[in-house]
Amino acid sequence: MVEPANTVGIPVNHMPQLKDELDIVIPTIRNLDFLEMWRPFLQPYHLIIVQDGDPSKTIAVPEGFDYELYNRNDINRILGPKASCISFKDSACRCFGYMVSKKKYIFTIDDDCFVAKDPSGKAVNALEQHIKNLLCPSSPFFFNTLYDPYREGADFVRGYPFSLREGVSTAVSHGLWLNIPDYDAPTQLVKPKERNTRYVDAVMTIPKGTLFPMCGMNLAFDRELIGPAMYFGLMGDGQPIGRYDDMWAGWCIKVICDHLSLGVKTGLPYIYHSKASNPFVNLKKEYKGIFWQEEIIPFFQNVKLSKEAVTVQQCYIELSKMVKEKLSSLDPYFDKLADAMVTWIEAWDELNPPATAATAKA
Amino acid sequence: MVEPANTVGIPVNHMPQLKDELDIVIPTIRNLDFLEMWRPFLQPYHLIIVQDGDPSKTIAVPEGFDYELYNRNDINRILGPKASCISFKDSACRCFGYMVSKKKYIFTIDDDCFVAKDPSGKAVNALEQHIKNLLCPSSPFFFNTLYDPYREGADFVRGYPFSLREGVSTAVSHGLWLNIPDYDAPTQLVKPKERNTRYVDAVMTIPKGTLFPMCGMNLAFDRELIGPAMYFGLMGDGQPIGRYDDMWAGWCIKVICDHLSLGVKTGLPYIYHSKASNPFVNLKKEYKGIFWQEEIIPFFQNVKLSKEAVTVQQCYIELSKMVKEKLSSLDPYFDKLADAMVTWIEAWDELNPPATAATAKA
Repeated sequence: MVEPANTVGIPVNHMPQLKDELDIVIPTIRNLDFLEMWRPFLQPYHLIIVQDGDPSKTIAVPEGFDYELYNRNDINRILGPKASCISFKDSACRCFGYMVSKKKYIFTIDDDCFVAKDPSGKAVNALEQHIKNLLCPSSPFFFNTLYDPYREGADFVRGYPFSLREGVSTAVSHGLWLNIPDYDAPTQLVKPKERNTRYVDAVMTIPKGTLFPMCGMNLAFDRELIGPAMYFGLMGDGQPIGRYDDMWAGWCIKVICDHLSLGVKTGLPYIYHSKASNPFVNLKKEYKGIFWQEEIIPFFQNVKLSKEAVTVQQCYIELSKMVKEKLSSLDPYFDKLADAMVTWIEAWDELNPPATAATAKA
Repeated sequence: MVEPANTVGIPVNHMPQLKDELDIVIPTIRNLDFLEMWRPFLQPYHLIIVQDGDPSKTIAVPEGFDYELYNRNDINRILGPKASCISFKDSACRCFGYMVSKKKYIFTIDDDCFVAKDPSGKAVNALEQHIKNLLCPSSPFFFNTLYDPYREGADFVRGYPFSLREGVSTAVSHGLWLNIPDYDAPTQLVKPKERNTRYVDAVMTIPKGTLFPMCGMNLAFDRELIGPAMYFGLMGDGQPIGRYDDMWAGWCIKVICDHLSLGVKTGLPYIYHSKASNPFVNLKKEYKGIFWQEEIIPFFQNVKLSKEAVTVQQCYIELSKMVKEKLSSLDPYFDKLADAMVTWIEAWDELNPPATAATAKA
């Protein structure tokens, strides 16, 4: 069985990449002891902690970490009535952190994720790999059989069109999990003992036109390129569904990345996922999603955004209209979700006015 | 640097899978000494050797292998005027072997491919892995982030639609290469010393709608499902192009597999590719392909086969018409190639009449 790495003794990286351009977003309901293990890799970065649930509870953060923390009261105060678009009692609330960040890049991680070891036993610096993935191009228009062609020791293989070798900007880096795999409740119930022990040493671009199940546990993205589409929907308290927050975001960002010719990568880095959530609780949260997704996925597979939609916001508003038109018949929830998508964009633009964005870039 | 495995001492598998249902096709111009290393894995199977070039030359086959051998005179005798569709002085002639085989499965391998070692040092039984790939389903309609969901220790991840988990039949298994990567001449020239040392322990389905560069060096397929589309085109002697035989077949099989809902897998198994071909010679063979592919690939990306095309043969004939209509303006070669595609199907059907196919199945 794979075990998490022991990072004790690993020196803190003295030249952390993108130190002032990246925020780490962590949704949590508990003390952040898990950060101790990540200290060598994450301490140089700024954290945005989104406290879920009871705002009167105090979340302890290990000493030495630079952070800002938002609880529900803060969210309500900052967003006013628009706070309705941020989920409560669900890790979907993390997307509030994407919105208040002023950095170019986001890395988001769950508090039950630990440092993984590669096959040589070395601790995996997940953030460093995400940064690598985001800073090098993607190749969504044609499949490269030797995986990421931009990686050292690899290239485009014979027959890969030269006109496509420049690639496109990478907007999203989706990392994977050793130990507890990200299974749905039925699979958890059927295979309670299955552990992921296979370290696949690859990063690849998910081809244009192909949807994937995006997990929010170990995820990084470029806020400037795709941030406004990284909305984790309405989940948890008062909603008929849970555990589809990241899936929803994944479907949305993928169709928008495809439309805007941006890349989505998956593969490395791995984190060590420590504890399986309760499959019975999960089943209750998921069961509507399990049948809804049978219609939602064909919907997203057929989404065609207009030529007029040239910004992420424009794409997202168009998508919200399609959701209202095509998915509301599935359940009134989607009508509410479509409205929340619009509210999310309004809130995003309020907190990230174009001028600020321009200043941030300069 | 990776080295080929030493298979001495590995006992011959006593229960070779699909022994009577699989032929191994090898195109060659030299003695097949490379088979010595493959003996433990390949000796139980029947070989179809397609001798390229001078038919008066004798090809030595190591003792103990069961084989049939065809030289150019045999091809001319068997196909008569239809032999014009089989390339001469080019390994594209291998597809004659696919046509004369009466088995359900084909594994084709180049004579400069040796047994690779996995990271534990164990010799890789490439054929066994290809058989695994072909016998388990593909998942072309949605991406699974943990790679092949049918593999032991893996499954479909959260968010994968249950209706798609049955998968579709796998028609093609595309294996990879350690040591000398399959690069085009320009990349060979720029990176003469690059070696592929990364063993990526994964098999994945190439998503529907995505084209890939199919290499014929280490390839297996289901003849009954896709055989008639596995035509390697007109290359070599008397043709303006070489080294695009497998690419051509790859584009054709992929659009037909997509149309017929069949799967194409890539990844494991690796072979050890021993010797880089001469990049200057390759450049001469490839240079037209390098610019033609800039138009050929968009052509294939836009191919829409009709609902009436329900057999591989029907799809292939439709495709040949599109090639004639859309690519002939690129070069008269494509007019000739489109005709050869039709000849290939006629020859295939002559050697594989429906009745025979039914008998073979029974």
